Amino acid sequence: MPTAPSSPVGLHRVIEPAGVLPQAATRLDARPELWPDEVRISVERLNLDAASYRQLAEAHDHDGEAVKQAVLGIVGERGKMQNPVTGSGGMLVGVVDEVGPESPLGVKPGDRVATLVSLTLTPLRITDGLAWWDGKSEQVPAEGHAILFARSIVAKLPADLAPELSLAVMDVCGAPALTARVVRQYVDKGTKPVVSVIGGAGKSGSLSLAAARHTGASRTIGIVPVQAEQDKLTAAGLADVVALADARDPVALAKAVEQAGGPADITVVCVDVPGCEHGAVLATANGGTVIFFSMATSFSAAALGAEGLAADVTMLVGNGYVPGHADYALELLRSVPGVRELFEGRIAAEGQD
Amino acid sequence: MPTAPSSPVGLHRVIEPAGVLPQAATRLDARPELWPDEVRISVERLNLDAASYRQLAEAHDHDGEAVKQAVLGIVGERGKMQNPVTGSGGMLVGVVDEVGPESPLGVKPGDRVATLVSLTLTPLRITDGLAWWDGKSEQVPAEGHAILFARSIVAKLPADLAPELSLAVMDVCGAPALTARVVRQYVDKGTKPVVSVIGGAGKSGSLSLAAARHTGASRTIGIVPVQAEQDKLTAAGLADVVALADARDPVALAKAVEQAGGPADITVVCVDVPGCEHGAVLATANGGTVIFFSMATSFSAAALGAEGLAADVTMLVGNGYVPGHADYALELLRSVPGVRELFEGRIAAEGQD
Repeated sequence: MPTAPSSPVGLHRVIEPAGVLPQAATRLDARPELWPDEVRISVERLNLDAASYRQLAEAHDHDGEAVKQAVLGIVGERGKMQNPVTGSGGMLVGVVDEVGPESPLGVKPGDRVATLVSLTLTPLRITDGLAWWDGKSEQVPAEGHAILFARSIVAKLPADLAPELSLAVMDVCGAPALTARVVRQYVDKGTKPVVSVIGGAGKSGSLSLAAARHTGASRTIGIVPVQAEQDKLTAAGLADVVALADARDPVALAKAVEQAGGPADITVVCVDVPGCEHGAVLATANGGTVIFFSMATSFSAAALGAEGLAADVTMLVGNGYVPGHADYALELLRSVPGVRELFEGRIAAEGQD
Repeated sequence: MPTAPSSPVGLHRVIEPAGVLPQAATRLDARPELWPDEVRISVERLNLDAASYRQLAEAHDHDGEAVKQAVLGIVGERGKMQNPVTGSGGMLVGVVDEVGPESPLGVKPGDRVATLVSLTLTPLRITDGLAWWDGKSEQVPAEGHAILFARSIVAKLPADLAPELSLAVMDVCGAPALTARVVRQYVDKGTKPVVSVIGGAGKSGSLSLAAARHTGASRTIGIVPVQAEQDKLTAAGLADVVALADARDPVALAKAVEQAGGPADITVVCVDVPGCEHGAVLATANGGTVIFFSMATSFSAAALGAEGLAADVTMLVGNGYVPGHADYALELLRSVPGVRELFEGRIAAEGQD
């Protein structure tokens, strides 16, 4: 066992450049020996980030063998799977192999788990040359090992759900957890809030609607861009009102939310298109809260938009990590039939969200 | 007086394209006649946004007359001063000329005021051909009128302070107001928080430090990048500890805050350089709050950084508007000698922040 002290965020595994966080490192130490607070996973499958896989496939003219060699090259060189062009990684599924005596992660050997921190900061070694992968999909069967730090996030794959279903839920589980936390803050102060979810029929959106209702929202509003999604979300029964609006049109969005029983005390932005900041602010009540989960959110558009509208709203950057987030989202999936319906429909249609 | 109904955010003044917010409009109706909830300002001076002025000056080879004609052209065509290239505007100073009977802004004719909403959404007409401006500076003496909507933000210029000083304070007054609000939330729950301000010697930073102490922080930490700022902030006496660190180096920043008595319960990011998100998260205690005021903040770096570090922190987009923000910041300037010292020093050195 190594003797140099370990860091909960993995600084001890950084080789180059010295002193940066593992995500910023160009090379990690992926040796299998554990520091006392680490966990080693026996890898079964990598799920490459969609943007990363697309870049690799296009750079190699969709030649599967070339894509495979590129991934092997990256992991061999960097000690982690981080696409040097997109900067992104993905996640992995495997079985816990060894748990350091001081690990706080709460897993034991034999547990089947998914890592919820990015592959961009996870030490990884591949030992089978990716022999079972054709290089044609983001799903990469792989043998080898990965290392989790004390502050990594890992979730056990439940035995009662298909792994694809669990992974799809875990991928967005920060959204319902943070939505629930914010709704609870209102409820604790004696207000049952009106919650509007922009992009309510998507993965993070449908879970956020379910979370809002579950934690005591007085009314839930789902906003969707097209009729087909309105029908689907209405059938799922997750929102008290489902309304159509283009979230990039602030005036139209505010009007739709108003007519649906708004303005919202809490607006949750789950739709991955740019330009929704002003509409979200305008559709939120004075003193209300906007939670931005969309990675297309522009920080300056949100800050300047609220100022320009003289809107006294609290705006939250949707943190993908809230303690207990995976378990909470899986519990919503199990207990709310409409959520499960939407997720299973999406998985059947594969990769629409 | 016009008879069509007015909108508190100014939709009734939008000519093109129909239905968008005034900031997104290409042309506003700048006629002097007021709707009942509006206010007309007799303009004295425009302060162009620095980025906008720089673009205009460079595009016209620093030919003052050409820059002047460009500004006149923009305002004449758009009915507002919004640089079509940078998208930015600025603010203005003037005297209240007429107040509609239904205006909620609380000003009266003769009040000398500054607008705290952007020129990009303020109907404006210039009547003196900018005869008193040489086109060589962002400060534009101007005659004409501007219109404020019901939800505009306007602040009276105090008689006891030099206008430059008041304007410099108002420019950043959202930061101390939001910092104070967040500190108060902790205090109300029985915790006196440790507050760390990254970029503590700047305008928004020094006011935020003063606000944190004023509202009950148990300890205030100012982080600065260079020795000269450390000396200045130490002399001003605004922080319990002033420490040197490069905010773009997460490990170094977290260590500096730790040694200064951290981690911080509340981290306020006031430094306008990209790449401070991970450091801010890492230097914040579990369960703590990060407030991002820097326009250089990357939404995705903040969201993914917190997730990658498994950090349960609340991250706030620094909204430039909090009710009462200008008065609160001016009161801090008056009552805290160290704040006034730093601001007057900056104004003497002109435009360093």
